[in-house]
Amino acid sequence: MTRFETIANNLAEQIRAGQIPVGARLPSLRQIISQYGVSQTTVFRAYYLLEQWGLVRAEERAGYFVTPGAAVHAEVPKQKQDDAPKKVDISDLVFSVLESTQHPDIVPLGSAFPSPTLFPSSRLLKSLVAGTRSLSPWSTVEDLPGSDRLRQQIRLRYVGIGLAVASKEIVVTNGALEALNLCLMAVTRPGDAVAVESPGFYAALQAIERLDLRAVEIPVNPVSGLDLGALRRALEQHPIRACWFMPNFQNPTGTSLSIEKKRALVEMLRQKQVPLIEDDVYQELHFSRDRPLPAKAFDTEGLVMHCSSFSKTLAPGYRVGWATAGRFADKVRRLKLMTTLCASIPAQAGIADYLENGGYDRHLRSLRSSLQTQLGQMEAALHRWLPDAVKWTRPHGGYMLWLQLPQSVNAMELHTLASERGVSIAPGPMFSATHAFQNCVRLNFGHPWDARFENAVRALAEILDSPGVRA
Amino acid sequence: MTRFETIANNLAEQIRAGQIPVGARLPSLRQIISQYGVSQTTVFRAYYLLEQWGLVRAEERAGYFVTPGAAVHAEVPKQKQDDAPKKVDISDLVFSVLESTQHPDIVPLGSAFPSPTLFPSSRLLKSLVAGTRSLSPWSTVEDLPGSDRLRQQIRLRYVGIGLAVASKEIVVTNGALEALNLCLMAVTRPGDAVAVESPGFYAALQAIERLDLRAVEIPVNPVSGLDLGALRRALEQHPIRACWFMPNFQNPTGTSLSIEKKRALVEMLRQKQVPLIEDDVYQELHFSRDRPLPAKAFDTEGLVMHCSSFSKTLAPGYRVGWATAGRFADKVRRLKLMTTLCASIPAQAGIADYLENGGYDRHLRSLRSSLQTQLGQMEAALHRWLPDAVKWTRPHGGYMLWLQLPQSVNAMELHTLASERGVSIAPGPMFSATHAFQNCVRLNFGHPWDARFENAVRALAEILDSPGVRA
Repeated sequence: MTRFETIANNLAEQIRAGQIPVGARLPSLRQIISQYGVSQTTVFRAYYLLEQWGLVRAEERAGYFVTPGAAVHAEVPKQKQDDAPKKVDISDLVFSVLESTQHPDIVPLGSAFPSPTLFPSSRLLKSLVAGTRSLSPWSTVEDLPGSDRLRQQIRLRYVGIGLAVASKEIVVTNGALEALNLCLMAVTRPGDAVAVESPGFYAALQAIERLDLRAVEIPVNPVSGLDLGALRRALEQHPIRACWFMPNFQNPTGTSLSIEKKRALVEMLRQKQVPLIEDDVYQELHFSRDRPLPAKAFDTEGLVMHCSSFSKTLAPGYRVGWATAGRFADKVRRLKLMTTLCASIPAQAGIADYLENGGYDRHLRSLRSSLQTQLGQMEAALHRWLPDAVKWTRPHGGYMLWLQLPQSVNAMELHTLASERGVSIAPGPMFSATHAFQNCVRLNFGHPWDARFENAVRALAEILDSPGVRA
Repeated sequence: MTRFETIANNLAEQIRAGQIPVGARLPSLRQIISQYGVSQTTVFRAYYLLEQWGLVRAEERAGYFVTPGAAVHAEVPKQKQDDAPKKVDISDLVFSVLESTQHPDIVPLGSAFPSPTLFPSSRLLKSLVAGTRSLSPWSTVEDLPGSDRLRQQIRLRYVGIGLAVASKEIVVTNGALEALNLCLMAVTRPGDAVAVESPGFYAALQAIERLDLRAVEIPVNPVSGLDLGALRRALEQHPIRACWFMPNFQNPTGTSLSIEKKRALVEMLRQKQVPLIEDDVYQELHFSRDRPLPAKAFDTEGLVMHCSSFSKTLAPGYRVGWATAGRFADKVRRLKLMTTLCASIPAQAGIADYLENGGYDRHLRSLRSSLQTQLGQMEAALHRWLPDAVKWTRPHGGYMLWLQLPQSVNAMELHTLASERGVSIAPGPMFSATHAFQNCVRLNFGHPWDARFENAVRALAEILDSPGVRA
């Protein structure tokens, strides 16, 4: 990381933590020059980056000030505690929403993917060729279900955050989605109860529906994350066979668990010997300087199955992910061999070559900076157009913003009316087994901001102003 | 096809059909020259090809004679009719056998894959680059779950055998294995009964085990194929919810259903409204001139889900297959999106480009010729080394030979002892829910024949001669 990026990151962390409050002036040029021993140019570049990220605003001849957008906190909505295991019926809703986001003419605020233009596709193609050319023809037999070379690179990413993971614990999959599904299949039988987040990633609910499982929903506070007290009660009341959680940059709220809560979560599950399926697909998309630890870091008994992929960070469409599946690795590996055999071997080889030679960390720094910039731009547009009653919490990573609209708004209606105006959103009911969160919406800031997106936010504001969206 | 290939194929069909019996002399040079209007050189090239395929033998100054190998028919073993739906417990056995075949030092007679050296890997890499370069970055969103360009090419392969299939009926998958699994999931719930072949592909049994289904085994006659009478009785006795069959070059027996039987099969299932999952992965590996029709050709109500892939014919390791899933296409597509999202997009683009520009039909002709040559070489070795009591039926396509050993032989023991000598085989019990076919073995002739394979067959003969393999 360059010096100006380091300075910008340090200041950004202080702003996010509230140490430099809304409206406050940033430390002066002079102070920073003396603190870091850098040139004036370097400090200006750091200020400029913070401005790009929407965290500060320059005021002529007065300096840089923290913007209100930087510290908006949503009110935490009251959630009903109704955690009896239940059957799930969500797929029709999810598909009807997702299909409406697929058309290229739709502004993809409801999309689950970041913009494919953010990825180094031509450098990656070079690696695809080099990696595929270097394959032995016998790799199709010997590398089942996953390439050793790629697993070695994945292992090294763990080393980067101080985790020692054995290659043989890593099962390469067809994206994180398959990893999560295989892990769930490895530890459940039809009828079993599984704890999920509420609101939570709809794919978990779909998997539960598909495998005839039952969901126990654990509330997620958009500021502090998963409610561990509620989880403890649920574990005592129900024969929960597995948990499927997202401790970092949770989808859809964007919230993360603190280190202490991650540790407590793993310990609680260890006592009950309940496996944790950890969805960590946004781990590399952190806005703070350091990559956050996964819950897996506190796992001493191989009970945590850590799932991630390259789809959100490097190679969408290559479909390469993995599960680091602890004591369940053999079972997950066999399920992989039985259902899809292996991930595409050229894709694995291309990603392995890129990780070795392509400059992954450099690319990630640039990607994170783009995402922060886009978040700033989206927040500015939300402030510009939406009524003050709309609240959200600023995520510290990923590319999803969880909006709370006034109680009177029906997000499904908003979705329908927005679709008619060429704008997709992800309405709250997609994210719960009980179709709750009727007044919530997930927005995607993973796309370079432009007039299309600005107009889309404006269109949402106009719809919110109309009588059609009232619950 | 060149003229000499046409002549060789015509003669081969007459030999296989018994129209030119074992020991008979081929039509003379003069006869063929006048029949086809070709040169002497062309006829000699045709004879030479037939000799390569092991169908004829040159006798000095006397002409070419049909070899005994060309018409060996196994005795059809008696099979117990015990078709009550049963739970399946096969995976441990299958994995222990498959893992033993994975090591590069093992002679892979038990492998499920043809030799990767038979595929046009450098031409395919060229297509991988061209196809990937031509992708829009938005393909990762718009092409879910499968590329239009590839589905168009798959549709054209159906046109080649006179079938009109709509692109939207085709779901691109991560190989045929995923296609088959998704189709099974689309039409069953835990506890349902599914009809499978006996002996049959172990992956069907593994899927039944994994999804908590029950298997009803329908006998397969190694000469005439699936016993339709037994299927009819099973359909009357049990609430069968789906069938998973392989009408062409069945795995493991290599047998195919006649056109009449395919038609009758589809009609029988239509009357009962039972879906057929048709595994047709060897369809392009036919030794006769024309590609055989799938059962899907007789499907008027969208009840047949036709599954195939490019893994056995072009691109092992790319993991691209498909299901043409009739009335279940939407359901299969959604299951695909929920479990693995899509097949690797560069791999799809590479295969689409190859199908458009790479000369797939030319490659297939050469591949089929290699497989026939290898079959001839394997049969010659079996005749040379194995006792006469060992029987098999000559397959008309694919790369698997199903051997029946004397009743006293225990194929599991043979597998263990062969492993110790560096030779893998696929023992019969892998292919049935009841671990039957104790005296049967599947051998793979998908590898260029050489001294290693010759010695492996010789090693099997020595083991068969020892007391250790007796049941």
